[in-house]
Amino acid sequence: MDVKNPVIAVVGAGAVGAYYGGRLAQHGHDVHFLLRSDYKHVAKNGWKIQSCHGDFNLPPGTMRVYDKAEKMPKADWVIVTLKATANDQLESLITPLIKENTQILTLQNGLGNEERLAELFGPQRILGGLAFVCIHRLEPGIIHHMDHGYVRVGEFIEGGNEKARAITGMFRKSKVECDVLDSLKKGRWAKLVWNVPFSGLGGALDMATDELMCSADGEGLVRAIMKEVIAGARGCGVELPENVIDQRMAETRTMGSYKSSMQLDRQQGRPMEVEAILGEPVRAAALAGVAMPLVAELYRLAGIVNLAKCRERR
Amino acid sequence: MDVKNPVIAVVGAGAVGAYYGGRLAQHGHDVHFLLRSDYKHVAKNGWKIQSCHGDFNLPPGTMRVYDKAEKMPKADWVIVTLKATANDQLESLITPLIKENTQILTLQNGLGNEERLAELFGPQRILGGLAFVCIHRLEPGIIHHMDHGYVRVGEFIEGGNEKARAITGMFRKSKVECDVLDSLKKGRWAKLVWNVPFSGLGGALDMATDELMCSADGEGLVRAIMKEVIAGARGCGVELPENVIDQRMAETRTMGSYKSSMQLDRQQGRPMEVEAILGEPVRAAALAGVAMPLVAELYRLAGIVNLAKCRERR
Repeated sequence: MDVKNPVIAVVGAGAVGAYYGGRLAQHGHDVHFLLRSDYKHVAKNGWKIQSCHGDFNLPPGTMRVYDKAEKMPKADWVIVTLKATANDQLESLITPLIKENTQILTLQNGLGNEERLAELFGPQRILGGLAFVCIHRLEPGIIHHMDHGYVRVGEFIEGGNEKARAITGMFRKSKVECDVLDSLKKGRWAKLVWNVPFSGLGGALDMATDELMCSADGEGLVRAIMKEVIAGARGCGVELPENVIDQRMAETRTMGSYKSSMQLDRQQGRPMEVEAILGEPVRAAALAGVAMPLVAELYRLAGIVNLAKCRERR
Repeated sequence: MDVKNPVIAVVGAGAVGAYYGGRLAQHGHDVHFLLRSDYKHVAKNGWKIQSCHGDFNLPPGTMRVYDKAEKMPKADWVIVTLKATANDQLESLITPLIKENTQILTLQNGLGNEERLAELFGPQRILGGLAFVCIHRLEPGIIHHMDHGYVRVGEFIEGGNEKARAITGMFRKSKVECDVLDSLKKGRWAKLVWNVPFSGLGGALDMATDELMCSADGEGLVRAIMKEVIAGARGCGVELPENVIDQRMAETRTMGSYKSSMQLDRQQGRPMEVEAILGEPVRAAALAGVAMPLVAELYRLAGIVNLAKCRERR
């Protein structure tokens, strides 16, 4: 953990990866980005980040970009910001970056990402981070960071937090608000309380937060889904306070008309993270003996939308 | 029934009313149309109907248009083509048109329309028609009739069919394929087998028929919903053959990418006929002791979409 100038690899540098990796690079870290679609553009022109916390540019030379993991150096830290829909590529993209003490932090959405990484690379080196950020890619090389940005990091094997404190420290020195989670699992489920109803309904029905909350029926369904998620969490050993529902609803009201990542993915013809946000929680709760019938139905509907939208792209 | 030159009033002359009333007017019937939004335009310019069965125009003079029911003559036949979402206006719009022997034919979608009219005006004068037609209003005064067009008419009080034969005869002489239903109730439920899944999912998820059927999950859900509708029909005393599901699926595959009326309503910011197509069937089946859990959930979701879309329009 005490590597002086750690090599940091960002795998899947879309908006989230460009931003967090970019903040680290901006503050002197040695960051290497693995890109797909925007590789040529960014290799030539770098990134421009329009951020509510201060704009900054990453010209080529302040960081390195790659189109193949095999060309990258072994990393001390791998930060995974791939969409969870591309998790079948985790093995091929990350394997070339691994050395003995490589740590892997996934900032991906939903459940199951740490588990998959742990299977592939061993649980002791896996960390998970919840990124609370409103950000998107405007065009190749241009990222718009609109709101929030803080990250909460926890270790996959609960108990220690030395590694979480190490990466948290790097983020904090790089203008990213960051703290350490005592329980990553609890953090994941607490985030799902919001994500399952608003991303799930948002993606399945193509509705923004204010549309879902503007009727008593809509608010009632959101609350019923949140209640199921809390029950699922409890089944998985995570106790969330009942007032979390009122808190989330109140926070959501302050957000105006907010489109979840799943709704935006749908509208822009990209695959939605249906498995990570809906399927994995349903399966995890079911394994613990807790049925979540509304979430299961939403999982089915969002899956059908996803399959149809995928089909369109072919 | 043997009125020589019956006065025909069309209440709610959108695309469907303009087309069927227009065919009757085109063939010499005395047709009086009650309009709302396009009244001024049609009063001045008449209608232009672009029809797959032959274009025709209805210049002012070939028919009469009105903006208030009170200005219209009492009618021998009232044809109701109002959207079912406006059923709270049935009483005020139709009462001025009623005399002793007035017959009322509703061509509205879904369940519950005949029942409502029977409550208001007595069951003996009520008929229902299923319009199988693909039609929409292009702009004020211009109707585009794309496909099909046949109508199946039945009497609300089952047993007789004298009145159904009378109106069927008028339609047939006016280039509208039309036949008499032995059981209106059976006809309504048979149509719901298609309408509930494809209009319901189409409206709730904003998906066309081919998108819903392009995945095994989507097709499976459509079939499961159809199965519930068949069980609901059975509870209400209507026996539909099990192979109706395979038939409907095969027919739907020939339609290409078809947007249901509910999906079009949603996309164009109009209220969807959620009660007539989903709510009434759920309630009718429940009264008969049959639960339709998937349809009930769809009813809830489509209702939430509807409420939000309505809210937007305010």
